[in-house]
Amino acid sequence: MAKAKIEVCYSPALFPYYENPEAIVVVNDILRASSAIVTAFMNGVEKIIPVGTLDEARSYKHRGFMVAAERDGIVRDFADFGNSPFNFTEERVKGREIVYSTTNGTNAIKLASSGSQVLIGAYLNISALAKHIRESGKDLLVLCAGWKNKFNLEDTLFAGALARMVLEEEGYHSICDATLGAIDLYEAAEKDMMAYIEKVAQRHRLKKNNLDDVIGYCHEQNLTDLIPVLNGNHLVPLQRIS
Amino acid sequence: MAKAKIEVCYSPALFPYYENPEAIVVVNDILRASSAIVTAFMNGVEKIIPVGTLDEARSYKHRGFMVAAERDGIVRDFADFGNSPFNFTEERVKGREIVYSTTNGTNAIKLASSGSQVLIGAYLNISALAKHIRESGKDLLVLCAGWKNKFNLEDTLFAGALARMVLEEEGYHSICDATLGAIDLYEAAEKDMMAYIEKVAQRHRLKKNNLDDVIGYCHEQNLTDLIPVLNGNHLVPLQRIS
Repeated sequence: MAKAKIEVCYSPALFPYYENPEAIVVVNDILRASSAIVTAFMNGVEKIIPVGTLDEARSYKHRGFMVAAERDGIVRDFADFGNSPFNFTEERVKGREIVYSTTNGTNAIKLASSGSQVLIGAYLNISALAKHIRESGKDLLVLCAGWKNKFNLEDTLFAGALARMVLEEEGYHSICDATLGAIDLYEAAEKDMMAYIEKVAQRHRLKKNNLDDVIGYCHEQNLTDLIPVLNGNHLVPLQRIS
Repeated sequence: MAKAKIEVCYSPALFPYYENPEAIVVVNDILRASSAIVTAFMNGVEKIIPVGTLDEARSYKHRGFMVAAERDGIVRDFADFGNSPFNFTEERVKGREIVYSTTNGTNAIKLASSGSQVLIGAYLNISALAKHIRESGKDLLVLCAGWKNKFNLEDTLFAGALARMVLEEEGYHSICDATLGAIDLYEAAEKDMMAYIEKVAQRHRLKKNNLDDVIGYCHEQNLTDLIPVLNGNHLVPLQRIS
């Protein structure tokens, strides 16, 4: 039997060259959108509607939705709160529908919808993700949200970690250079992840705005088994629809 | 004084996000276009005209030029020879003008022409390149030709090797994640480059067509000080115009 393949796409701008309608697409934006979305489901959010533009977010706000929106680390005046995972507390989000607008993550989610299933990946749910993918037997395409279409390290490291876990299942293989590179970078980083993350550009951007308190948390593994899945225009936990 | 910056672009499709008119752009396509072009100058070629399409290459052939052209490893019927560095022998190329058409490299050279200077980089001339860049004090943008707009490892490793050399000069710095990633990958690979290259996708493509005999040669460092530079529509050695 042919093995299922794993590919990693380092930027939304490269997605057309990796697109695979058979694949499960895992979108990740570790610092911070995908970590925040997984956290929101851990704290009982009902659904999350990812939107691309601030205008869309504002229009949802006017219709009564709770909105998380910021650009370059600054919370927008119409929004209820910004995009830090720490904002998505149980008190605030349990049972609610939330609109989430983000610089890089939302666009990546929309692109990914050409895949057979779109999942949101973070270290927080990485083992549950790997298990679900291995059990599906489907191709895996990891889409890194990147930074304004540039390559970033933190998303690439996550892609390497996830690819390595899925490759433990003998039904999977990869001849994709981006996947092999991501695994090698993860292996260079994993011995001391926080020291490695010191150098990534996004850490400097977050630090400048005093938003870097989330970095340790965003690299904690397996706090949950919940896997957000795109269902129409919104995200819900996979467990709820399967 | 502000330091000059180094960035690496992993794919021609990402070039718009890295474009920098102040920068020296080094185009590399290690397996095999940039290695072949440097080899041709080592063997005395007068000039090389890179062309993007086979139609252009054919039209030059009808006007009497010597043409190197292949696609996916197969020499085109109208061409004098294919794209292996081993084809560009002194007997064949000395004093000649050659048209060179290639899958990924030519397109990358054309894109790069928005930079302040476009150089062709390979391991064969890597130290001369690094020295020239350091002495210029200009920003460096390394453009990897990649594979049909996808990321590839062999070009990324070269970018890491070159960036590391240029960073030895204290007037340079990099906060570009792609540069830091490329350096880390090169450092994982350099202890046993040929073992590392075993896994790259392009090696498998070349092997399938019995074209992988060039891999060792394309990773030899510092066989020449010649640096091909784009001058109008063609490449000549930098030494000849400066």
